[in-house]
Amino acid sequence: MRKSRIYLALLHYPMYNKRGEIITTSITNLDLHDISRAARTYGAEGFFVVHPSPKQQGLLQDIMGYWQAGYGAQYNPDREQAFSILKPALDLLQVMDLIEKESGCRPSTVATDAKVHSRTTSYLEMKKKIQEEEQSFLLLFGTGWGISQELMQDCDYILEPVQAGSDYNHLSVRSAVSIILDRLLGECWFEA
Amino acid sequence: MRKSRIYLALLHYPMYNKRGEIITTSITNLDLHDISRAARTYGAEGFFVVHPSPKQQGLLQDIMGYWQAGYGAQYNPDREQAFSILKPALDLLQVMDLIEKESGCRPSTVATDAKVHSRTTSYLEMKKKIQEEEQSFLLLFGTGWGISQELMQDCDYILEPVQAGSDYNHLSVRSAVSIILDRLLGECWFEA
Repeated sequence: MRKSRIYLALLHYPMYNKRGEIITTSITNLDLHDISRAARTYGAEGFFVVHPSPKQQGLLQDIMGYWQAGYGAQYNPDREQAFSILKPALDLLQVMDLIEKESGCRPSTVATDAKVHSRTTSYLEMKKKIQEEEQSFLLLFGTGWGISQELMQDCDYILEPVQAGSDYNHLSVRSAVSIILDRLLGECWFEA
Repeated sequence: MRKSRIYLALLHYPMYNKRGEIITTSITNLDLHDISRAARTYGAEGFFVVHPSPKQQGLLQDIMGYWQAGYGAQYNPDREQAFSILKPALDLLQVMDLIEKESGCRPSTVATDAKVHSRTTSYLEMKKKIQEEEQSFLLLFGTGWGISQELMQDCDYILEPVQAGSDYNHLSVRSAVSIILDRLLGECWFEA
């Protein structure tokens, strides 16, 4: 039995673009679907979609409304259930406050990146923490060309990249989230 | 070192719709991107997008052309590299013939499904086969509400569902492919 509570945040700012400049990325519809479905499958408590722009927040509300109260909820109730854990937020501070209010404690932040960092935590180590520690963990996922270094360094933990040994390592954020949830929260398929 | 060669096929026929009728689904753009990127990251030899309709094959060629020869290849060379392993096919028989021509042997077929079947192979067992057996394996992924029972039963192996113990098990095909590739072909992150 897992003792901790797991939250995910999908960040759109401060991200890098392909030239290494700090930008705000746009919300991608299928990120919402795929990550909600994966987060719900793996028993996460909440999935925060973090975007500073009121217009993008409006788009997010429209999409959520369609699948939770509109025709989408009627057409596909599974999707309605997945979207029920999706929560909008303006910035990371708001996410931390919401989690603290809900769970009673401030979560430890766990950054993810396709790049290798000097200070990294292995999946096995993090899996053990998640199983054994009575606290909340917030997994941070970036968009665009990844989370800014400054924000990465502020996080409590940085996970190793997925499949770091590959000569090609360009997974979509939807794939990376799915694999990381499976490694950290998945059933132990590897024990004979 | 992996001794086998791994191929993926994304099927659009014969699939179930939500009422359990056999249908042909449409090609989804992000399936092509996410699955090509994951297949390339995990060292698969080829990713077949299987669709019987000439019009949908035309759409597929347009998308592939943009990322391999058009502006997309120039804008994002990583994507060009991912799309280089994507191959169109009209049906499963054509896929089998193409793999036999390329690798010298007919592949063993490995079906995947979110439903539990009586005859299933565990991930650990399949991972060992992939590492140790000098042959080709073709992993089959469905769209819509899943692969028809008739086709499933014709396959050499049926993998266990991902996260079968969850009270909610509705991953996108993009998430399922990513997780299954990680379990079968990923680095051994779980050995301390």
